[in-house]
Amino acid sequence: MMRRIKLTIAYDGTNYCGWQIQNNGPSVEGMVDEALARLLPEEKPRITGASRTDSGVHARGNVAVFDTAGSVPAARFAPAVNRYLPPDIRILGSEEVPPEFHPRFTAHTKTYLYQIDNNRIPDPLQRLYRYHYSYPLDLARMQEAAEYLVGEHDFTSFVNPDSQVFEHNGDAVRTIYEISVTGSADGSVAFRISGNGFLYHMIRIIVGTLLQVGTGRRRPEDIPEILAEKDRTAAGPTVPANGLLLQKLDYGDSTERGNR
Amino acid sequence: MMRRIKLTIAYDGTNYCGWQIQNNGPSVEGMVDEALARLLPEEKPRITGASRTDSGVHARGNVAVFDTAGSVPAARFAPAVNRYLPPDIRILGSEEVPPEFHPRFTAHTKTYLYQIDNNRIPDPLQRLYRYHYSYPLDLARMQEAAEYLVGEHDFTSFVNPDSQVFEHNGDAVRTIYEISVTGSADGSVAFRISGNGFLYHMIRIIVGTLLQVGTGRRRPEDIPEILAEKDRTAAGPTVPANGLLLQKLDYGDSTERGNR
Repeated sequence: MMRRIKLTIAYDGTNYCGWQIQNNGPSVEGMVDEALARLLPEEKPRITGASRTDSGVHARGNVAVFDTAGSVPAARFAPAVNRYLPPDIRILGSEEVPPEFHPRFTAHTKTYLYQIDNNRIPDPLQRLYRYHYSYPLDLARMQEAAEYLVGEHDFTSFVNPDSQVFEHNGDAVRTIYEISVTGSADGSVAFRISGNGFLYHMIRIIVGTLLQVGTGRRRPEDIPEILAEKDRTAAGPTVPANGLLLQKLDYGDSTERGNR
Repeated sequence: MMRRIKLTIAYDGTNYCGWQIQNNGPSVEGMVDEALARLLPEEKPRITGASRTDSGVHARGNVAVFDTAGSVPAARFAPAVNRYLPPDIRILGSEEVPPEFHPRFTAHTKTYLYQIDNNRIPDPLQRLYRYHYSYPLDLARMQEAAEYLVGEHDFTSFVNPDSQVFEHNGDAVRTIYEISVTGSADGSVAFRISGNGFLYHMIRIIVGTLLQVGTGRRRPEDIPEILAEKDRTAAGPTVPANGLLLQKLDYGDSTERGNR
C-alpha cells in the first residue's frame, strides 16, 4: 500500500536557483529528490512541493510530499533524509498524511516574512537574509497602508506580468489575512504577511510599494487606487529575493510539526 | 600632522582565516589594509586591531586604528573604505582619536556573544552564526554556574595552553564583569560575556564548560574547583568558532559610534 509522507523543509536559498528543478543550477527540490533516491534506491520517489520559491528566497516551513510503498516509520524520514542533504537544507519533520493531501491544492494559509536591514551601513551578518534599505522608514504609515491590502482583492497590480512559470489563469483574486510591520532594536524591519495564496513576486511588490509609503513617496490612501488600476506599473518596485522567507504553511487539521 | 583614525568594523568571519594576516587564506586585517591602500595609495597605512579574532569568529564591533597625514574628514573614511571591501566586511564608523589611543592597550571593556541553536534539527538560516547543540539545557543552572566566573580570577583552566600567538606571559588573571544566559522563542540560547580582556579560546572554553552544567554533567558548584585547579584539562571542551561574535569594545570616554 502506498503511503504519502509530508516533509517540512527549511533552507537557505542563497546557493540555489530556487525550489524548482531547472537547468541553471542546483535546486532545493533536486537536492531533496537526490537524497530520497539514495535513501530509497528502489523507489526513487519524486517530491511535490507546496511553494516554488524563487532563486535566493529562504524557507523555514516549505512543505513537500512523496509516496512510498515501504514501511519506514514516517517520523524517521526527517533525520534519514538529512544525512544526505547539505547543511543549508534541513528536513524539520516528516509525517504520514492522507493520500488525498496535496501541498498546493489542499487549502492552507501561507505566512511569509520579508526582512529589511534598515541600518545606515548594512550588517554583514544579516546580508544574506535581509534587504539593506537605509532610508528612514515611517512604520506606522506603512502599517496604515498595509491595512488596505488586507482582505480579498484582485492583486493584478501586484503580480509580475512576465511570469510564465506561475500562471494564474487571469485570476489574480487572493485573500490576505494579515500584514504586520515591526521594527526591532537592531535596526531591522520585518513584514509578516499571511494569506490563502500569493501570485508571482506578489510579496516582493507589496513590500516595494510599502517602502515607498514608508519614505513618504506615496500615501497610505494611494493603495486602493493602485489595486483598482489592475496594472503592474501602478505599484512599486520588486524588492530583492534575499529578504524573503517562507515562514509557515498551515493546513489546519493536518498535524503540524514544530522544530522541537 | 599625523592623525589617528579609529575604525569600528563588523564582519562575517565565515570566509576568513581570522582577523590577523596569515599565509593560509584571506584575513579581515588584510582586506582592510588593501582597501586603505587603494584609498590612500601614497600612504598605504596599515591598521592595528583590538581583537585578533580566530578563523570563523564574527564581529559587530571590532576596532582598529591607522595613522594618516591627509586631511580627509574622519567620518568620511567609513563609507570610502566600504567601497573597496567585500560585503562580508563593513566599516560601521570612523572617527579621529588622540594619538595615544591604542585599540589593545587603552583600557576597555569587551563584550562577546556566543550563540547556540538549541533546536533538535539545526536551522539552516542560522548555521553560520550559531553552534548547533541539540541537548536540552537548564538555563538557570548555567546562569548559576556563570556567576562563579564573574569577578577577578586566574583563568588558567580556561585558556588554550598551545597558544603561541596569544601569549599571556603566565598572567591569566582577568576580570569578567557579567555573564548572562538567555533563551529565545526561536530555540536559540545566547551567552553574553563582558570583561576587561580574554585569553586565547577563553570564551569558547567557558561556554563549553557551561554547556556541561546545562546538561547536568557538571554542577554549578564545580566551577570554583575548576578555577582552582589552574589546569586546562579541568574545564570543558572548546566549542566551535562559528557561534562566537565580538559584539562591542567600549573605551569609555572615547566617542562611541553606533550604526544609526
